[in-house]
Amino acid sequence: MDNSKKAWKLINGGIAVPKGFYATGVQAGIKYKDKYDVALIFSEVQAQAAGVYTRNLVKAHPLYLTQRHLENGLARAIVINSGNANACVGEFGDQAAFAMAEVAGTFLAVPPEDVLVASTGVIGVEMPLDKVLNGIRMASSLLLNDVVKGIRGQKEEADEGAHRAALAIMTTDTMVKEYAYELSCSQGGVIHLGAIAKGSGMIHPNMGTMLGFLTTDAFLPSEDLQHILREAVEESFNMVTVDGDTSTNDMVVLMANGASGITLSGEDRTNFEEMVKSMCIELAKDIARDGEGATKLMEVSVSGAKTKEDARKIARSICGSSLVKAALFGEDANWGRILTAAGYSGAEFNPNIVDVFLGKLIVAQAGKGVTFSEEEAKVILALKEVHISLNLHSGEEQATAWGCDLTHEYVTINGSYRT
Amino acid sequence: MDNSKKAWKLINGGIAVPKGFYATGVQAGIKYKDKYDVALIFSEVQAQAAGVYTRNLVKAHPLYLTQRHLENGLARAIVINSGNANACVGEFGDQAAFAMAEVAGTFLAVPPEDVLVASTGVIGVEMPLDKVLNGIRMASSLLLNDVVKGIRGQKEEADEGAHRAALAIMTTDTMVKEYAYELSCSQGGVIHLGAIAKGSGMIHPNMGTMLGFLTTDAFLPSEDLQHILREAVEESFNMVTVDGDTSTNDMVVLMANGASGITLSGEDRTNFEEMVKSMCIELAKDIARDGEGATKLMEVSVSGAKTKEDARKIARSICGSSLVKAALFGEDANWGRILTAAGYSGAEFNPNIVDVFLGKLIVAQAGKGVTFSEEEAKVILALKEVHISLNLHSGEEQATAWGCDLTHEYVTINGSYRT
Repeated sequence: MDNSKKAWKLINGGIAVPKGFYATGVQAGIKYKDKYDVALIFSEVQAQAAGVYTRNLVKAHPLYLTQRHLENGLARAIVINSGNANACVGEFGDQAAFAMAEVAGTFLAVPPEDVLVASTGVIGVEMPLDKVLNGIRMASSLLLNDVVKGIRGQKEEADEGAHRAALAIMTTDTMVKEYAYELSCSQGGVIHLGAIAKGSGMIHPNMGTMLGFLTTDAFLPSEDLQHILREAVEESFNMVTVDGDTSTNDMVVLMANGASGITLSGEDRTNFEEMVKSMCIELAKDIARDGEGATKLMEVSVSGAKTKEDARKIARSICGSSLVKAALFGEDANWGRILTAAGYSGAEFNPNIVDVFLGKLIVAQAGKGVTFSEEEAKVILALKEVHISLNLHSGEEQATAWGCDLTHEYVTINGSYRT
Repeated sequence: MDNSKKAWKLINGGIAVPKGFYATGVQAGIKYKDKYDVALIFSEVQAQAAGVYTRNLVKAHPLYLTQRHLENGLARAIVINSGNANACVGEFGDQAAFAMAEVAGTFLAVPPEDVLVASTGVIGVEMPLDKVLNGIRMASSLLLNDVVKGIRGQKEEADEGAHRAALAIMTTDTMVKEYAYELSCSQGGVIHLGAIAKGSGMIHPNMGTMLGFLTTDAFLPSEDLQHILREAVEESFNMVTVDGDTSTNDMVVLMANGASGITLSGEDRTNFEEMVKSMCIELAKDIARDGEGATKLMEVSVSGAKTKEDARKIARSICGSSLVKAALFGEDANWGRILTAAGYSGAEFNPNIVDVFLGKLIVAQAGKGVTFSEEEAKVILALKEVHISLNLHSGEEQATAWGCDLTHEYVTINGSYRT
């Protein structure tokens, strides 16, 4: 991560780095033994909060509850389970989601309305609620012990708990996704941003559930957080999938508890916005990189578009193309498929003036192929991160999307996920 | 194929069954040795003709030429090559497409404006035009010899040539797609409909080039043919892919030469419309069944929709879902993925009243899972044709789409197509 020119820096730790935040994870045996599967995130004090949810018409039960609990823009805790999506199971699902909030609230001594709930896993199967609630009870105890350590000035020891939270939200993820940033404010003092995420089923047009949780010890009112989070998600998480192609459970939440004593304004607020966006992009790239069975990260940048929406459509269409993805896996410089995917993206552009690049190597100019070194292309395609870029020469707008290659392993994973 | 209740019947042969039509294929060595790769379809007399083309913004060079040559609604011949798409190669491509029409016209003694051109294969590479033109010359001679046989009353012998045309348009197809129907007219006499098609790269959101050619010895003016063909394509070829997700080369052409002496009207015309649609659906199903690496045909029917467009969107979204396709390959009754794909289709419906069936087995009712026999589900999912149906309980409209499973073999094929 290149933060050299940025006002913030990457530091150790994750979601519990911001002051007053704690997190933990436990093994509740929801689907597998020896897998962390229940996570708790907790703020010592009331926090301003914002959420962005799946656009899928079919929404999991916890999403409705979380939306309701976030109506007042306030939250104290988030409880998350993996191993079961709690989706499409009727009334039981609503009751289960509420029970999760209620038990967490009871054990953490906060009203259930201040608890948000998220789930990820198989759809349409009733969750083993007893196991989940037991997990929440265990997690609450661990977390309260961390709070005690924190009060005694040993908060760093609590970071291990936070790492377990990152583990607990994973499903087919193969890598933990957690980061922490520190921003020195121009008004003096520092604020922190911590985050964890999960997501891995990245093949277009389906996104396996994507969850993201961000915490900060800065203060901003929830309406401002909502605005900042929505903008950040548009440029990050929403650029690893295609509009509307979201799972039933996708959710990103940002909590700001103000424990740093700093209310953001002016330059600091601008930097904070950039920092949130940067964090979301890093997590989104990790999700793309960790696509099921993926061996490569694909980054597609489209410039010279007439409108931002055109640039976004084309970038996502290319990232979502199974033929481009398979060609990437095969390390085949098949730029025709890239141009084809741009062509059916629904965006308006003149195909006869488009340039296509693999890395810095131009492979098509003004809409037609140019002679290029196949060897050089092979080297570029063999990289772990492959950059594809298009210049539409039609305007000033640009967008970037992320994806991964399509592999045999993807088919194996998804041919037998449920059973 | 169940034609028992239909006015027409399936008969032997393909594209050259209708009176006055001839077709042949030759091995021109465009990409492979010993592969038929140039096809000619020819009508002894001027024919009315209609065409439907890709909606991709990036269109192959022959499409522009064919659209231009079809402006007057008349055609005598179609020349098709596989092994090279003649797409995205600039001016050379336009010249090559015209040269193909010109050479075919010269050798068949028809104006080049009466020759339509189609290509399929790799994009962005200049076609070996000498080989292609040589192929056209060879094919013309063979075809004219068949015409002579036809005049001498030995037209059946010409059918072998027609079969070679079906072979010549194939790329990664593993099965020949050709049919012929015969319709007894209420006004007396019979008319015929012949067809060939190619298409195989069926994974959403990319369709490897899909070509379809239909011939009839009935007479109908080209505007009527255009209307009938467009309707038929909507319910067939366009239901094995997703709106806009078309390749640069897709084309379906219908020629009617009137050689039967029968001008269609009334009931006969209605039957003809149904027959064209039925033919297109059979070809579309063959294309889905022949999806690259596919082992199963998936048929998704959506009923009870408020609008036809909603039903279409949902059916196609499910057929195009990589997760549904992979689950089908793994024979996993993962109905949650089916409902998820419906949810992000963009269609309006109430997820809480939807029923989902695998074959006749109900797996979800009113939007939530029901207890069903996993064994029975396994049996259904192990079939070569798997039927998925949804009842939205929201209206009277319905639609059907076709797809295939996603397999390891697909990844292998598409990881190394170009090189």
